[in-house]
Amino acid sequence: MRQVSIIGIGQTKVDEHWDKSFRDLGVDAVLAAIQDAGSPPVEALYLGNMLAGQLTGQEHTAALVADYAGYRGIEALRVEAACAAGSSAFRVGYMAVASGLIDVAVVVGVEKMTDMLGNEVTAALASAADADYEVMHGVSFVALNALLMRRYMYEHQVERAAFANFAINAHRNAMNNPNAMFHAPLTEAAFGKARMIADPVSLLDSAPICDGAAAAVICPTARAREFSAHPVHVRASAVATDSLALHDRKDLLFLQAGRLSAQKAYAQAGAGPEDMDLFELHDAFTIMSALSLEAAGFAPRGQGVRLAQEGEIFLGGRIPISTMGGLKGRGHPVGATGMYQIVELAQQLRGEAGKNQVDCRLGMAQNIGGSGGTIITHIFESAD
Amino acid sequence: MRQVSIIGIGQTKVDEHWDKSFRDLGVDAVLAAIQDAGSPPVEALYLGNMLAGQLTGQEHTAALVADYAGYRGIEALRVEAACAAGSSAFRVGYMAVASGLIDVAVVVGVEKMTDMLGNEVTAALASAADADYEVMHGVSFVALNALLMRRYMYEHQVERAAFANFAINAHRNAMNNPNAMFHAPLTEAAFGKARMIADPVSLLDSAPICDGAAAAVICPTARAREFSAHPVHVRASAVATDSLALHDRKDLLFLQAGRLSAQKAYAQAGAGPEDMDLFELHDAFTIMSALSLEAAGFAPRGQGVRLAQEGEIFLGGRIPISTMGGLKGRGHPVGATGMYQIVELAQQLRGEAGKNQVDCRLGMAQNIGGSGGTIITHIFESAD
Repeated sequence: MRQVSIIGIGQTKVDEHWDKSFRDLGVDAVLAAIQDAGSPPVEALYLGNMLAGQLTGQEHTAALVADYAGYRGIEALRVEAACAAGSSAFRVGYMAVASGLIDVAVVVGVEKMTDMLGNEVTAALASAADADYEVMHGVSFVALNALLMRRYMYEHQVERAAFANFAINAHRNAMNNPNAMFHAPLTEAAFGKARMIADPVSLLDSAPICDGAAAAVICPTARAREFSAHPVHVRASAVATDSLALHDRKDLLFLQAGRLSAQKAYAQAGAGPEDMDLFELHDAFTIMSALSLEAAGFAPRGQGVRLAQEGEIFLGGRIPISTMGGLKGRGHPVGATGMYQIVELAQQLRGEAGKNQVDCRLGMAQNIGGSGGTIITHIFESAD
Repeated sequence: MRQVSIIGIGQTKVDEHWDKSFRDLGVDAVLAAIQDAGSPPVEALYLGNMLAGQLTGQEHTAALVADYAGYRGIEALRVEAACAAGSSAFRVGYMAVASGLIDVAVVVGVEKMTDMLGNEVTAALASAADADYEVMHGVSFVALNALLMRRYMYEHQVERAAFANFAINAHRNAMNNPNAMFHAPLTEAAFGKARMIADPVSLLDSAPICDGAAAAVICPTARAREFSAHPVHVRASAVATDSLALHDRKDLLFLQAGRLSAQKAYAQAGAGPEDMDLFELHDAFTIMSALSLEAAGFAPRGQGVRLAQEGEIFLGGRIPISTMGGLKGRGHPVGATGMYQIVELAQQLRGEAGKNQVDCRLGMAQNIGGSGGTIITHIFESAD
């Protein structure tokens, strides 16, 4: 099996892109990544997307974006695992290059959510949950996270305020990311009086609905220096699953798929959580940040929230998270998010994170589908 | 890169399954394939599906089916390329095993279309075409195929009746396939007076809307005999794309992606169309059969329809197609179809096709997404 490296990255700003269609966003990110890689001969495109069928009436998006990017004819497939679609496409691209079947591939995550009304988007997002046994009772994703957060607060005896730093950190880091959706700092006071959506999940616990696309070009590590002065090596790629429905889980407050995929990734990389210099986690809701930190081994059960309270998740802390704004500050265009995480991690490992630069050699990204039904972990290493 | 073989196959009957949900169908096919393979240790599941999000409100289907099949925790991803979703999942499974990352994977194609009204299904199917530039003008998939068929008839000076044998052959072969939807023979007279849907495409030119799931278990060829007495070897796997929109094609009547993916597949297999003992093609509409035969090199331009007229596509002919009924006779549960083609080809290569058995060593399957925007070709060889 061949080793694989990232040789180019590209992204659009995360925003409400009223003047851009789904394909426009995908093409912009793809071409930016290919240009960043010095225009290598791209043989395949793997596209992560969750909702284009439901929200824009367009399936078959991989061939479409390949064509409009100027690559008509190449292999192109779409991969989906709810909100983990972005990193699931990266997983497939990784397998394609690792196998020797493809030399240069571009992986792109794309989502266009703002063409529809909010309630339609909420309904579409719920299709990541179990349609027959969760959604048919009327539950939304915010509601599912509210159940988790309420239970976490009860089991571990913490107040809502304990989660504030997850949102504050994300917004602070987004300030220096020109591609982030939000450039407004958050205070603890603002977090405290934020409008409730599904108690105890407030507006400021939640990532926004938005549009965006992010892409990476990958090739065999042996050839990476041909195309890039600062390749980023894939040290681990792992997918694990769990029941879609919360009520089917053995332990409501433990992301079993996060633990499984992190363990597989650590084994592949020959490293552990103590070796990670930063962690791009899936902070769609503040409760997910706490649970992710615990599942990935950065904190014991019930202690994930402490890392936020103690500032260990900040840029200078023990394990910086959401370093370019995360889902909360940069935005969460669902099927694109996994690729934003990977692209931002590459920015960090290339030393191109500007004011948010973390001193790093190894970093991990973890992308969550649904309420944890699919969790995908990648570990990357700087070549410098 | 490792060679890959099929060690188990399974399928549900193609039908209107009013008593089965999407997950039920997927689980039935997955478990049948795993049982057929002697219950090897499955590490990953790749699921091909096109429309579950739009038709059943359920994305995130790979983790769901893995869980309900009893494999909670394993890697699971969904792959989509419109009606080529089934074989696109097989392509990903092939890459996973070829790379050495996964030893035993199950690939399943699933579609549940009969829970909705016909016009809703028609609208959902149109999402395989270009939503912004084709569908917004009101075109359906039948209409797109009608444009192609009308032009083919004009350019190549053939009558509608010339296409009859594509449907007659499919229905005749379906008679002996217990998993086929239709078990009624077709006559030329019936074809001639069939109800028009979009002139010149009649009801009997068109594959039906239906439900079904088909699955295959794959592993490295080196280990295939551990699990199966009659493995089927993957000799080629190739994906190619074209513009989604018909009006963007250089040549309306030539499936460029079919040609490209067939050429790649022939090169991988070290074989040509003359070496193929049968060809499971994508006869969603009779015109697609003619175009596929031409693109894959079985007939010159404009002559694909002659192979039908001359009976060369029948079981005893030069290149048998739709040997278990094809999309027209067995049925076309869109995201599952590519896996039905592969499973049926495996039945043939294992010598298990009953009354429809073709004397064969090498066979090809070609799965079409949209009106040719994605075309995926696989070549398989009998191990016997």
